[in-house]
Amino acid sequence: MTRIRIKIAYDGTDFCGFQKLPGKRTVEGAIDSAASLACGEPISIIGASRTDSGVHALSNVAVFDTECRIPPERMAMAINARLPEDVRITASEACPSDWHPRKRASVKTYEYRIYNGRTWDPTRKRYSFFCPYSLDPRAMKEALATLRGTHDFTSFANPASQVLLRGGDAVRTIYDASMSWDEKASGILGGIGEIRIRISGSGFLYHMVRIICGTVIEVGTGARKASDIQEILDARDRKKAGMTAGPEGLILCSIEYPEDQETDKRVSQEG
Amino acid sequence: MTRIRIKIAYDGTDFCGFQKLPGKRTVEGAIDSAASLACGEPISIIGASRTDSGVHALSNVAVFDTECRIPPERMAMAINARLPEDVRITASEACPSDWHPRKRASVKTYEYRIYNGRTWDPTRKRYSFFCPYSLDPRAMKEALATLRGTHDFTSFANPASQVLLRGGDAVRTIYDASMSWDEKASGILGGIGEIRIRISGSGFLYHMVRIICGTVIEVGTGARKASDIQEILDARDRKKAGMTAGPEGLILCSIEYPEDQETDKRVSQEG
Repeated sequence: MTRIRIKIAYDGTDFCGFQKLPGKRTVEGAIDSAASLACGEPISIIGASRTDSGVHALSNVAVFDTECRIPPERMAMAINARLPEDVRITASEACPSDWHPRKRASVKTYEYRIYNGRTWDPTRKRYSFFCPYSLDPRAMKEALATLRGTHDFTSFANPASQVLLRGGDAVRTIYDASMSWDEKASGILGGIGEIRIRISGSGFLYHMVRIICGTVIEVGTGARKASDIQEILDARDRKKAGMTAGPEGLILCSIEYPEDQETDKRVSQEG
Repeated sequence: MTRIRIKIAYDGTDFCGFQKLPGKRTVEGAIDSAASLACGEPISIIGASRTDSGVHALSNVAVFDTECRIPPERMAMAINARLPEDVRITASEACPSDWHPRKRASVKTYEYRIYNGRTWDPTRKRYSFFCPYSLDPRAMKEALATLRGTHDFTSFANPASQVLLRGGDAVRTIYDASMSWDEKASGILGGIGEIRIRISGSGFLYHMVRIICGTVIEVGTGARKASDIQEILDARDRKKAGMTAGPEGLILCSIEYPEDQETDKRVSQEG
């Protein structure tokens, strides 16, 4: 029995999220089917991040166990040959049989894309949230800065969060929350064009990134002030924060595990 | 009767090209239907560039005549309300009744996107041509440089070109042909990642940009040399050039008309 670790990229538009659901088209379901065909035995992957319906990923992580003799590094190609075009295995390798993608201290990085203009750009619509209102990007940056660090994020979590319902705590650390946009460009019909928010953290509660981005957009439109963010955090009340921004703008960019960085460091010291 | 000039953006993936075809979903057909509903009379637009099936546009140009009293600048909004999501009117204004989008000396700029890696990135697949082979971007740049200037482009045109069949000449001027890529980045599974070729010219023959890019890709893979380009031009024979690269990578970025630039100059001098 070999445990295989895979990295997964997908366009989430036409998937009902990552997690397997009977009768629904899901990323997990598509990979289980393709991997079962490739390996000739029933395969069930365990994913690191169960992204929502419509959310994209450049590098989600999962593992599965197999008796199959396909060399671990060739597994990506074998599964890809049986996958639909909107999901790809971008890497595969053997890993220790007790390695689990969710039980390790990892750093997840998300990007949230907003398209600001009087009308949307049809070539960006699948991968960005359309906002037609005039936005103040500097106020949005300031709001994001307040969110950096360790806080209780109850106000920025969907109360249906399994973690919260089970009585778990809502304290999380955001290592970085930054924003970039092309200051020279403008949208195809006025506006700022594409804005990208990047958020890295030790873990995120249900809908947390989308509620943060929805609240930051409301700061951008002037409906809230950047200085309100601290109050919202202190309130520990979902009703104080802003909307849950649409899933189409959200991309899971990477999941880094500490042991990989140790390997990277060792390799770079050796090299 | 007012002549209205519009700018049009579209995701070409689900359209059978720009030009109206009975029973097919086309950009022209979609805009004619939406504009006819908005104006309350039958509308037929005349487009500047009849892009192929699958080709995208950020700013194609068209005109139409109407008796309708909607203010010209509000026409974009009125038509957009009746258009499918993958096509948008990004600007509308009144223009002289004899202004024609195809009979003027214009500069068209195209971008061609190539995604180079061992597998494609599912979040870029709709808007880039996937090339899994190892590419030499410097050789590709050199090939593009040879194409700049005024040449007979018979070798780079589909022989079914209406212009060529009618005995028209194939001499065209390429003002700029350049290439950019993120030298730090790499594809999600090796390779260079996204490469963007930009080509501006006085006019292009049928499939010309795609045949140029297909040939440049073959230079990148080593199947041809950058120094072969001059010979291919001299041969005036389509069979000497490379493949027609897929439509999904091609985006019509802009069409500039000399009279607009005069207006821009005047405005900037006045301002």
